[in-house]
Amino acid sequence: MSMKFSKRSDHVKASDVRELLKVTQNPEIISFAGGFPAPELFPIEEMKIVCNTVLEEQGDKALQYSSTEGFLALRKTISSIMNNLGVSAFSEDIVITSGSQQCLDLTGKIFLDEGDIVICESPTYLAAISAFQCYLPRFVEVEMDDQGMKMDKLEAALKENSQAKFIYTIPDFQNPTGRTLSLERRKRIVELANEYDMFIIEDNPYGAIRFEGNNLPPIKHFDTEGRVIYVSTFSKTLTPGLRLGWVCANPEVLRKLVIFKQGADLNTNSFAQLKAVKYMELFDLEGHVSKIKEVYRKRKYAMLEAMDKHMPEYAKYTNPEGGLFIWVELPDYINAREVLAKSIENKVAFVPGGSFYPNGGHENTMRLNFSNMPEERIEEGIKRLAEVLKVLGRD
Amino acid sequence: MSMKFSKRSDHVKASDVRELLKVTQNPEIISFAGGFPAPELFPIEEMKIVCNTVLEEQGDKALQYSSTEGFLALRKTISSIMNNLGVSAFSEDIVITSGSQQCLDLTGKIFLDEGDIVICESPTYLAAISAFQCYLPRFVEVEMDDQGMKMDKLEAALKENSQAKFIYTIPDFQNPTGRTLSLERRKRIVELANEYDMFIIEDNPYGAIRFEGNNLPPIKHFDTEGRVIYVSTFSKTLTPGLRLGWVCANPEVLRKLVIFKQGADLNTNSFAQLKAVKYMELFDLEGHVSKIKEVYRKRKYAMLEAMDKHMPEYAKYTNPEGGLFIWVELPDYINAREVLAKSIENKVAFVPGGSFYPNGGHENTMRLNFSNMPEERIEEGIKRLAEVLKVLGRD
Repeated sequence: MSMKFSKRSDHVKASDVRELLKVTQNPEIISFAGGFPAPELFPIEEMKIVCNTVLEEQGDKALQYSSTEGFLALRKTISSIMNNLGVSAFSEDIVITSGSQQCLDLTGKIFLDEGDIVICESPTYLAAISAFQCYLPRFVEVEMDDQGMKMDKLEAALKENSQAKFIYTIPDFQNPTGRTLSLERRKRIVELANEYDMFIIEDNPYGAIRFEGNNLPPIKHFDTEGRVIYVSTFSKTLTPGLRLGWVCANPEVLRKLVIFKQGADLNTNSFAQLKAVKYMELFDLEGHVSKIKEVYRKRKYAMLEAMDKHMPEYAKYTNPEGGLFIWVELPDYINAREVLAKSIENKVAFVPGGSFYPNGGHENTMRLNFSNMPEERIEEGIKRLAEVLKVLGRD
Repeated sequence: MSMKFSKRSDHVKASDVRELLKVTQNPEIISFAGGFPAPELFPIEEMKIVCNTVLEEQGDKALQYSSTEGFLALRKTISSIMNNLGVSAFSEDIVITSGSQQCLDLTGKIFLDEGDIVICESPTYLAAISAFQCYLPRFVEVEMDDQGMKMDKLEAALKENSQAKFIYTIPDFQNPTGRTLSLERRKRIVELANEYDMFIIEDNPYGAIRFEGNNLPPIKHFDTEGRVIYVSTFSKTLTPGLRLGWVCANPEVLRKLVIFKQGADLNTNSFAQLKAVKYMELFDLEGHVSKIKEVYRKRKYAMLEAMDKHMPEYAKYTNPEGGLFIWVELPDYINAREVLAKSIENKVAFVPGGSFYPNGGHENTMRLNFSNMPEERIEEGIKRLAEVLKVLGRD
């Protein structure tokens, strides 16, 4: 039997890391691998009330198909969230998606033909690479420093690739590095997009989880020409199990997106949408997010302190002001995939950083998640990881 | 600002019918347009218990990310459903998707390069056309009769298009025609697939909603070489709002599908998956489906009787043994899009049949849904529709 798969099927391979990480389901393993929120903070009791109320008041709507764009009530609530962030938006400027991941797939579908260029941070979000890769683009990576993507490097990339389709960026507490794009660069990236006639996909799942420093406006706040496609989610603030994301963009982009979304899944889970609306009506989402931030802040420091104490001198790591991740750079001669294999024997896991570079390389890097483990396990996990590094390193 | 959309974006257009049908949200309009289940049959009280129990017992799992393949408990339950249908399947042979619509998008992604051929029924499901169209294939339509796709025509199509990627078929109470593929043809289509080295996508959302006649085994029951990709959903049996579908296929296809699903939405709503499992544990899904069938049977006859009474002689229509739809053929000189425009003035709506032909034409056809309206409104709606036809026709 011939499989007759498409070209993209041959191109997109299963990740070996994903296979390795299947062991993290074993509760003995201390996992810094996933990007999972802390489940002990999920508002389970509140959700019981929310489910009952939604079924009581709008059961027939909650269990039926709904419009591809999403329920107006939810789009309205999200438009206020956007306005509070300094982005002027009406409900018509918002479309609900099945997690923000679906936005990435759909924007790939809207813009990318084979061989088209995507400009992104180096490194960038693994599953954005997967989403875009389906459409067989080329990735042009732009170097970062502690202030995010370097604007001179971005400009050089734009000059050299004026036919690029869009710039993909995660400005706040970037996945995987935890870095945040500075205020100056937020203004500059919009100027560059205007100058080079480029779209920007601003992927912002973590912005609300800032536990230190000052809030920065989204890139879209500076958008003067409708070039910024802002993507976000309730996964990090409310719960990921709802699979609720949204996109705020110019009407022409949204129109295309809705056409493709219809073919992709008709509509996003109706019940989940109404639950989100009702939760925000009955409870205090901001108050809930405050609790999350407090817990994550402590966990970040637990991880940093353990790293300061146990890690070999040569390991360099970031200190994010929010989000879920710390990024580690090791000397060139250490391969983080080997570190992972040995770590798993030592019952600790993480994601090797090489996976976050669409064009490969950088195998001496690691992404550590701190949101999903209690402090005492974080310390123990870092100790175990440091033991592995000490054996492999020449420190 | 240049939009820089992909080729597929220029190719896939918003449906004008979709715009027309936005008026069906007006409750004054009697709508035979959507493929919506009857909301008054939704098990709302049971769902309250289900939500509470899931949150009580597994709240942290319900609200967290989950595996791309879906929860094992749900895959196991579905494998029993498949076994009861005469398809031998283990839980590993099942992957959960965000509605069966997502399966169509993902199978398109797996198989289709630009210019590839999809063989399908003429007419076929509108949103399958949309899903596949993203990948820029050519559609080869195969004529149907009351027994479904004609096998001699299918064989001719296969001979002429031996490089086709797959046959897409809806064997039970097809959308839009309501027709069912006969037992003999189910065997024959598998023989042809084997002979011509072809995959079959068997889309079966309606099979469980048979209210007359004898059950027929799915095409996959006759599959000897792992060529049939069986796709189904809980939308018509439990509720569409959950957005829960599944695919049962050979391991190599499922492996590809999971890779692409990860890029498309990471995982299907965790809470919805656990709700489906719990519902089937606590309540009697089959008993619930019996109630649905009884109501739909009555509604179908209400529609057929009203049509016999009010419709002009020249209108020919199907009499389905299950599902949600009746198909109407009018004389060539009547354009159903014009009928729709006039019908909406007369406060009744349906979907013009031309939309279901990927290569166009057949504008003299209409799809009528009978599941979503009570019997008295069905009679009234058909009366209104017949009035429009009488004005337009030369009966």
